[in-house]
Amino acid sequence: MKLIEALNWRYATKRMTGEKLDEETVNQIIEAARLAPTSAGLQPVHLYVISDQETKAKIQPIAFGQPQIVESSHLIVFTSWATIPDEEIDKVYEYTNAQRGISNDKTADTVANLKQLFSTFSEEEQYHHTAKQAHIAFGIAIAAAAELGVDATPMEGFDKARIDEFLDLKSKNLRSVVLLSLGKRKVDEDWLLPLKKIRQPKEKFITEIK
Amino acid sequence: MKLIEALNWRYATKRMTGEKLDEETVNQIIEAARLAPTSAGLQPVHLYVISDQETKAKIQPIAFGQPQIVESSHLIVFTSWATIPDEEIDKVYEYTNAQRGISNDKTADTVANLKQLFSTFSEEEQYHHTAKQAHIAFGIAIAAAAELGVDATPMEGFDKARIDEFLDLKSKNLRSVVLLSLGKRKVDEDWLLPLKKIRQPKEKFITEIK
Repeated sequence: MKLIEALNWRYATKRMTGEKLDEETVNQIIEAARLAPTSAGLQPVHLYVISDQETKAKIQPIAFGQPQIVESSHLIVFTSWATIPDEEIDKVYEYTNAQRGISNDKTADTVANLKQLFSTFSEEEQYHHTAKQAHIAFGIAIAAAAELGVDATPMEGFDKARIDEFLDLKSKNLRSVVLLSLGKRKVDEDWLLPLKKIRQPKEKFITEIK
Repeated sequence: MKLIEALNWRYATKRMTGEKLDEETVNQIIEAARLAPTSAGLQPVHLYVISDQETKAKIQPIAFGQPQIVESSHLIVFTSWATIPDEEIDKVYEYTNAQRGISNDKTADTVANLKQLFSTFSEEEQYHHTAKQAHIAFGIAIAAAAELGVDATPMEGFDKARIDEFLDLKSKNLRSVVLLSLGKRKVDEDWLLPLKKIRQPKEKFITEIK
């Protein structure tokens, strides 16, 4: 499907059929998220891809009982680094340089500047920064799902502290950011489906300077 | 172009040719961003779409002199609401309901809950929340550009306070979030182009629970 057409087709699906998506399709959506750009290439994003029904059922009450959590094929929990430790910056650059056959000296200034920059951020600001990167990947995953004709529900309404605890994220220096249910729309029972998609008109959305 | 293929093709273009993109192509990228989902449908995102060369030249020093600012066809400044005022929540829901032919009573509880929720956020937290929504639209715009074969450079490295002042964003209750240069890669002069795209491998990017 062409992307604009796909983005018009998609909506925040409230009821799903429970049908399983094939793994190849899910993999493509994950791959799109993996390819997302991140600020300074830090890639501070990690996804929990949950197809186990019992786990989804435990998450549902932490997300206001939303039915598409358990009616999904896969529930993806987008997480990001809770903080941005110097050693993680080193690790990313060392890995990238090794893959590119570049000496670490070449990126030493960039790495030093990044460490200096993030040292001026509070822990909460570090998390907001990494969570924003997760939202880029989230947007690209939503676009990829739509292009593949897969229904997807973006969800910010859940108890982040409880999800963090449930997935033991603290021990991994991660925090939850957003949820994405993937599956198939239950056409007859979804109250949102018949309603018109509403966005502010283009003339309110942009200011042109030309 | 298929999206995964397009995402592999794209990279954070450092040098551009200055060639102008046709308006229809730019409009499709804006349209993709406009169609992005936002938390609770608030759409707290506004884009400045800048093709004026003089304006880009004034922004360049505020963004560390990056050449792709002035070598772009269009520079897009993604902005989001600085705060989330009750009356803006009302306006969005009143507009949406009018478009859908629904009475405002139907959404009164949702609106009250949103106002209650955001009243617990500091002003800075309100901005982080809206900026995250801008990052979803940013991700989708990047995907759309890639699909159309348009080069795009995501940039978080710029002096946000100075851009806010330059575009007089405060008076509109907006703050700058990220920049996106759109244009065509200058193949011979871009140091990043020959370097391999590096992402963490899938097994490090996801945890499966199945």
